[in-house]
Amino acid sequence: YESLKSKYKELEGLPAATKDGEKVELMANIGNAEDMEFVVKSEAKSIGLFRTEFLFMDDEYPDEEKQFKIYKEVAEQLPEGYVTIRTIDIGGDKNSPHFDIAAEDNPFLGYRGIRLCLGEVEIFKAQLRAILRAGVYGSIKIMFPMIATIKEFMDAKELIEECKKELKRENIEYNDNIPVGIMVETPAAAIMADAFAKVVDFFSIGTNDLVQYTLAADRMNKQVSYMYSAYDPAVIRSIGMVAQAAKMNNIPVSICGESAADKTLLPVFVGLGIRHLSMSVSFIPEVKWALHLRTLEEAEEIKNEASVFYVKKDVEEYLKKVSEMLYI
Amino acid sequence: YESLKSKYKELEGLPAATKDGEKVELMANIGNAEDMEFVVKSEAKSIGLFRTEFLFMDDEYPDEEKQFKIYKEVAEQLPEGYVTIRTIDIGGDKNSPHFDIAAEDNPFLGYRGIRLCLGEVEIFKAQLRAILRAGVYGSIKIMFPMIATIKEFMDAKELIEECKKELKRENIEYNDNIPVGIMVETPAAAIMADAFAKVVDFFSIGTNDLVQYTLAADRMNKQVSYMYSAYDPAVIRSIGMVAQAAKMNNIPVSICGESAADKTLLPVFVGLGIRHLSMSVSFIPEVKWALHLRTLEEAEEIKNEASVFYVKKDVEEYLKKVSEMLYI
Ligand SMILES: [Mg+2]
Ligand SMILES: [Mg+2]
Repeated sequence: YESLKSKYKELEGLPAATKDGEKVELMANIGNAEDMEFVVKSEAKSIGLFRTEFLFMDDEYPDEEKQFKIYKEVAEQLPEGYVTIRTIDIGGDKNSPHFDIAAEDNPFLGYRGIRLCLGEVEIFKAQLRAILRAGVYGSIKIMFPMIATIKEFMDAKELIEECKKELKRENIEYNDNIPVGIMVETPAAAIMADAFAKVVDFFSIGTNDLVQYTLAADRMNKQVSYMYSAYDPAVIRSIGMVAQAAKMNNIPVSICGESAADKTLLPVFVGLGIRHLSMSVSFIPEVKWALHLRTLEEAEEIKNEASVFYVKKDVEEYLKKVSEMLYI
Repeated sequence: YESLKSKYKELEGLPAATKDGEKVELMANIGNAEDMEFVVKSEAKSIGLFRTEFLFMDDEYPDEEKQFKIYKEVAEQLPEGYVTIRTIDIGGDKNSPHFDIAAEDNPFLGYRGIRLCLGEVEIFKAQLRAILRAGVYGSIKIMFPMIATIKEFMDAKELIEECKKELKRENIEYNDNIPVGIMVETPAAAIMADAFAKVVDFFSIGTNDLVQYTLAADRMNKQVSYMYSAYDPAVIRSIGMVAQAAKMNNIPVSICGESAADKTLLPVFVGLGIRHLSMSVSFIPEVKWALHLRTLEEAEEIKNEASVFYVKKDVEEYLKKVSEMLYI
């Protein structure tokens, strides 16, 4: 372990890139402003995923003013980068005292994420206003979770426009040019990625939910968790469709699920065209190290080889084998 | 209504086809042998979906012998066609006293369909043996529900081979050439349709679950049921991918979900290349009538027009408009 640490140290200060210099941005995931302590000490310049729902799990409701301060505080600490604020992603297995969520037979297929926010317009608009205002003090992007239809995205964007009008009327400063993107985590969003790419400013692939919905397997359910895997060919194909749509429409695409830090899957992601990965800061040094061991061409070859397999186990065995060859 | 009935009567005895004679087979869905009473009176020559799980909802366990008699009885009543027997599809919202299913947080993403059968090998094999034996007396196809991976299909097929070996050893007659196909109802199966098409004998698209998983929306949940729709562009695209993979690999593909009887979606399905639809027999006359009102080329044009829209409401409005033009 000590020798690995010294290997990571050798790369400090250098940009995260493949052996031949193809840059891949490694960003940080955070859940609150306190997490910034670790981000500023890390090599991450940007936040690829700020999970704001944690702010809504406290008993005290985080009003617009409180949120504004938090988002401002985070954005100000990223002078060379930006923070991607994911709007409230409550529902599913995440509860909040500020939302009235009825018991559901299948909460993961229920009233959650953007669906809930579009139904709780006042809470949602307070968040959007806080973000628009904080955008004056630093670079911010807005990201909607659980988007399944273009209509949802359009409705949510419309609410941003409403907030802007209100702020203007109230003479409150806000940033008029905040990029607005979506999490790709429903199969519908992946399948329609080319259509979404024409209207969104960026994609971020949420592998945790995407795997779950694509395979129709609840990852918390022990009896089907054996099926749950980002190595499944259907998942890799979905990520490829999204990356391709982003490329064709010239918009950024990142991965922000747990797999973003998976060094064994890394060449596949890079080979598919992913150039942004967002993860817990603790994983950044090792992913950066694994990244620099191969050229882009080698990553593309591995991606091509892996795409030949139709069975998850074969994909996994192949990728583990090529990883072990480099002692990754 | 009376005038519609007389319109349907005019087509009696004629094959179900488009205006220019492109045949589309209209098959029946059944849940038990008693349903055959209505099938034999109808124009359906085949059963596209025999939901065998209903046999397992009674307190009395339907052993191999009992199932054999039922499958034989059904198959013998279809001299010009075949019966597609879907293997036990328990779990999700369907329970059975013969399976021990633990409470699940998200049963629709849980231990159900083929997953459950692969875990309850003795019950599954009894069913497979009964089907193989009944296949001597009539034309039968085997269909597995909830397939998400090629591995599951291979494992299930392996169990069929085991059953054949056992029957041979026991000197019991069976049909060695029963076609084996899958329900396409998980996004994974739709996305990997080209790979599946190389190993399965046929596809049947189960729109009910496919819609639910693609959009990550439980159709029983009132708060998200507004999202649940086979008119969603992501669903139509998925059906198109499956139809295309079937065509390229020269295997039959049918639709057996509720949408199979949707006269408004009919031109889209026909335009996408679907030539088999399975439904409640009561819908057959009206679907047959709607089918014969347009040429194949007209259906293809409607499919092309509908594919331009990225929002469900636009798809729906367009299709309703073209339906109303023909008083469908
Ligand atoms: Mg998610
Ligand atoms: Mg189903």
